Amino acid sequence: MLISKKRWLVEWGDCDPADIVFYPRYLEWFDACTTALFKSAGLPIEELFKDFGVVGIPLVDVRARFIVPSTYGDELVAESQVTEFRRSSFVLRHQIFRKELLAVEGFETRVWTGRDPENPTRLKAQTLPKEVIRRLSNERGGEAAVP
Amino acid sequence: MLISKKRWLVEWGDCDPADIVFYPRYLEWFDACTTALFKSAGLPIEELFKDFGVVGIPLVDVRARFIVPSTYGDELVAESQVTEFRRSSFVLRHQIFRKELLAVEGFETRVWTGRDPENPTRLKAQTLPKEVIRRLSNERGGEAAVP
Amino acid sequence: MLISKKRWLVEWGDCDPADIVFYPRYLEWFDACTTALFKSAGLPIEELFKDFGVVGIPLVDVRARFIVPSTYGDELVAESQVTEFRRSSFVLRHQIFRKELLAVEGFETRVWTGRDPENPTRLKAQTLPKEVIRRLSNERGGEAAVP
Amino acid sequence: MLISKKRWLVEWGDCDPADIVFYPRYLEWFDACTTALFKSAGLPIEELFKDFGVVGIPLVDVRARFIVPSTYGDELVAESQVTEFRRSSFVLRHQIFRKELLAVEGFETRVWTGRDPENPTRLKAQTLPKEVIRRLSNERGGEAAVP
Repeated sequence: MLISKKRWLVEWGDCDPADIVFYPRYLEWFDACTTALFKSAGLPIEELFKDFGVVGIPLVDVRARFIVPSTYGDELVAESQVTEFRRSSFVLRHQIFRKELLAVEGFETRVWTGRDPENPTRLKAQTLPKEVIRRLSNERGGEAAVP
Repeated sequence: MLISKKRWLVEWGDCDPADIVFYPRYLEWFDACTTALFKSAGLPIEELFKDFGVVGIPLVDVRARFIVPSTYGDELVAESQVTEFRRSSFVLRHQIFRKELLAVEGFETRVWTGRDPENPTRLKAQTLPKEVIRRLSNERGGEAAVP
Repeated sequence: MLISKKRWLVEWGDCDPADIVFYPRYLEWFDACTTALFKSAGLPIEELFKDFGVVGIPLVDVRARFIVPSTYGDELVAESQVTEFRRSSFVLRHQIFRKELLAVEGFETRVWTGRDPENPTRLKAQTLPKEVIRRLSNERGGEAAVP
Repeated sequence: MLISKKRWLVEWGDCDPADIVFYPRYLEWFDACTTALFKSAGLPIEELFKDFGVVGIPLVDVRARFIVPSTYGDELVAESQVTEFRRSSFVLRHQIFRKELLAVEGFETRVWTGRDPENPTRLKAQTLPKEVIRRLSNERGGEAAVP
């Protein structure tokens, strides 16, 4: 599977009065890591949805374990990859490291979602395109594309 | 177990370009629901940590299922309760409803956390006080306290 | 002018390691207060944009003064109103109070914005409808609508 | 004056249903840019507050102009510098560019804040240290420190 890496700083505003990251921030970062993985696969989000006629890849399920707390000024590195493809959904794993230590691990189950042709105000799951699966599976392409 | 309810509106800024709630917002709401549950139990967060010598109740684990999407203008209602007490941690369940329909369900595992007496810059799990368990378990007290 | 009120609690996750509200949260609340003002005027956001063919009311300018800090557990009350109508923009004032004290005051200049008919991927300012001005100016209607 | 640069991507979750950045995000970025400027000056935030006995640099005033909207996938670059030093406060200017175009400009007035010695639960403005002024004024040091 293609693995993408993302690196960022924990900001002051990411932290709460206990001086550690307010936990929903990690889920915002999972979302950004998913975008980074698609970009690594040559599927940048600003073109992805138009090219494939989808409106988004919303979640049906998320799980996360918080192992080591982080605080402002810490540098975090995430490794993200798909761990499972289903018909219209897929599972992503994000591992966030602080100084080589696994700090947070999360799994997102996302659905390839378009407009319902019978009622365009509603969303509807769509079959995951082969091209998307191929690109997210391509180990070589991914490494090359990581900036 | 004590059950608390919380009601709020989905705001424009909670939603993403797919016109639905950006999913980390639900986890922010879980956090606010946990605060509301403690308040219902007569343990308001602004006194809780000072009274019991803790610095927070950070998460070690979270799971959520997203069943029905919501958008700006929707009114959501959450029901929150503890589903399990352990030595120094506890599990909370949050059920978020839109028009009587279960829209999101989540489980947070949180740890009762103080300063490590041997190194005050570090956090350390502490035994959950009996008083806190009693209050979060008290069905009657909770109903009375819900505003 | 119509004045709307909004009341909410400062949450744990709204605060930073200095134990006070992380300041961009106030701007998120300004946005929610603007939505509340429109709702008070009988213009709920979930219908507003469809009814009037706009895609949003983005900002061109914001100013805010932070007078008294707030922390988690504090109850805040905001009073919001339009202070000036221009051709396609308008100025809103939000005053946030903590225990009767003016804590934050802000002014947002927003533009009534639709799709550019010549290029629907671009946004374009549109003349503010008379109906919208009338409703936001109506003192009596507003008081009635505040929940 | 020392000028620091920061570069980042607009994420999906930064944008609202009008497909443009939800405006309070810019203020979060201003905060991160302030941190980056201090880091460029050799004053990383994780040491700054301990070294100088302050608890934060909260805002008393902010102004921003939103000139060009941005959306997910856009790369933004900010240039930040102090434009004025006062006794215990200072003014920062942040200019955010998209493709060489000035997209957002903001001014933050921040206060050098410590605990009130007579009541440590309260915050109190403190005289800005000469060392901090010197470092934020040092053009040469800044350029070297930008990563």
